Amino acid sequence: MPHLPPRRPITQRAIAQLAGVSITTVSRVLAADADQASRWASPAKVEEILRIAAAHGYRRNPHAASLRTARSNTVAMIVPRLQDFVLATIYEGVDEAAAERGFSTFVTNSLDRVDQQRTRTQEMLDRRVDGLIFGDAHLNDPFLDELAEQGVRFVLTSRRKPPHVSVTCDDYLGGRLVAEHLLEIGRVDVAVLAGLEFASTAMDRTQGLLDRFAEAGVDVPPERIVYRGFDAPAGAEAMREILAAGARPDAVFATNDFAAIGCLGALREHGLSVPDDVALVGYNDTPLAASVSIPLTTIRSPMHEMGRRALVALADLIAGGEPASQLLPPELVVRASTI
Amino acid sequence: MPHLPPRRPITQRAIAQLAGVSITTVSRVLAADADQASRWASPAKVEEILRIAAAHGYRRNPHAASLRTARSNTVAMIVPRLQDFVLATIYEGVDEAAAERGFSTFVTNSLDRVDQQRTRTQEMLDRRVDGLIFGDAHLNDPFLDELAEQGVRFVLTSRRKPPHVSVTCDDYLGGRLVAEHLLEIGRVDVAVLAGLEFASTAMDRTQGLLDRFAEAGVDVPPERIVYRGFDAPAGAEAMREILAAGARPDAVFATNDFAAIGCLGALREHGLSVPDDVALVGYNDTPLAASVSIPLTTIRSPMHEMGRRALVALADLIAGGEPASQLLPPELVVRASTI
Repeated sequence: MPHLPPRRPITQRAIAQLAGVSITTVSRVLAADADQASRWASPAKVEEILRIAAAHGYRRNPHAASLRTARSNTVAMIVPRLQDFVLATIYEGVDEAAAERGFSTFVTNSLDRVDQQRTRTQEMLDRRVDGLIFGDAHLNDPFLDELAEQGVRFVLTSRRKPPHVSVTCDDYLGGRLVAEHLLEIGRVDVAVLAGLEFASTAMDRTQGLLDRFAEAGVDVPPERIVYRGFDAPAGAEAMREILAAGARPDAVFATNDFAAIGCLGALREHGLSVPDDVALVGYNDTPLAASVSIPLTTIRSPMHEMGRRALVALADLIAGGEPASQLLPPELVVRASTI
Repeated sequence: MPHLPPRRPITQRAIAQLAGVSITTVSRVLAADADQASRWASPAKVEEILRIAAAHGYRRNPHAASLRTARSNTVAMIVPRLQDFVLATIYEGVDEAAAERGFSTFVTNSLDRVDQQRTRTQEMLDRRVDGLIFGDAHLNDPFLDELAEQGVRFVLTSRRKPPHVSVTCDDYLGGRLVAEHLLEIGRVDVAVLAGLEFASTAMDRTQGLLDRFAEAGVDVPPERIVYRGFDAPAGAEAMREILAAGARPDAVFATNDFAAIGCLGALREHGLSVPDDVALVGYNDTPLAASVSIPLTTIRSPMHEMGRRALVALADLIAGGEPASQLLPPELVVRASTI
């Protein structure tokens, strides 16, 4: 695992330690005009203090004009894949809000791999970005915690990972809305194509559905919840696995529209029709959800707005603020795949 | 047009100007050990140089070469929309090849609007990018010609616009391959959902089909060629217009898979089945083409490779080379929508 060196400008305390002088001396030397510094230390020591400060990117005052010059006014977003419509749309929101605020944005793929998350982040820090937005948070990996300890400023979007600041859809509520709809239409023999286990989107959407079902006295057996991926091939594969095990659910919740579209194909292979045999619900309300041959019931998540707000939160962080995490409201959209 | 000031860390040249010494002196002082710096300047001057460097966040740059050549080692890509799977995939290729060569990439949307192309390009030039990749070339707009006259280095991808350097799929050949397939299966009463008239992709794919049909003695009436857009709603709209006019083609060529998916829905509304009533062909072979309920016959275009090669061509241009335009080979993929 590559080591990420701290990228926060060096503190006066650290300079003092490295130069073997007191913090007060460092503070006075750094604050003094060039011809006055020798009042506080020997010329060699003054030189050493200034050299350490220069080598480590010391900045006199985070709120001074000099810092604004030292800022790159660039931010970076790291996503699993930009090919994913959801992440591309969130990024469009980020880029739009960034341009309005004079920031330029880099965006790159981590392929949802923890080694790539580290490599890509390091590349962006080497580019001296002022902060990062992650669309690929893993619940079970300490990378973001390490980054926070190093003082790197970042905001999560799409996926959350408390206690880090995030702007996401209220996916737990989204899962509950799906359950309520299925309960209403009397389809409770459900299977869940849940996505990826390390993503809060998968876990929250699934848990919301399970909890609402449990409240209605309906248990979903564990073998009916299959974790694969969010794209169409993964949805098809997960559905085939459920059908191969002999199960014949009368409802399927795919935690992503693309997985739902893949599921449509797998159901068709088995001669099962939507919605007569199986009611199918997706998530996100991507434009294709309404355009496929059997238009999909789905949960609309405010993707573009999520990206805009994530950038605003990051800009707030960069300016020294303490933005709170936000959960944006999901909305049920009923179409032909369930009625 | 907002002016974006440069935000790079201070250069040795700027330090030299502020301290009133030569760049050579600055370079030597910054490179020297603390006890050696006084070989190159007076203690007061050494202190002043170090102070300026510290105040402006000077760091010995790992990308020292970029300082010498005044390059930013950044490039920009401008696309119609990153939400478009095809452009997102091309960008992934660009970003991957860029990272291998030490470039970072900005990417932003022009929404296919000529005013936005200009605004976004200016913003990127203000960022001192070394060059640009355009995925949104308009055949009928002089913007790129003007840019070339100004000496801006750029490469086109996805869409071409001679005489500018481009890396694209051989879309004309792709259109011919579609025609050959339809001739083989005896479906020559065709309609074309052509996309956008200002895009070479639309024009070349359509012209390839028309030319190959003409060689076989088949004429396609002009009213059977409808220009709308490349996405699913545009494909649905174009197909509805053709059907509303009373036409009942036995084959449809959509110049984009997403338009084909939209067309599927419009055909279903009219009770027409694919492939029995209408053979349907898309373009690009996006993953959804294979995953929709009626898997699509389509033309596979090497999207990722296109992006990689566009970046390589741009890097060549930046290095003073004269890369040639490239046409990458398309490939017919036959699936259930035509057989």
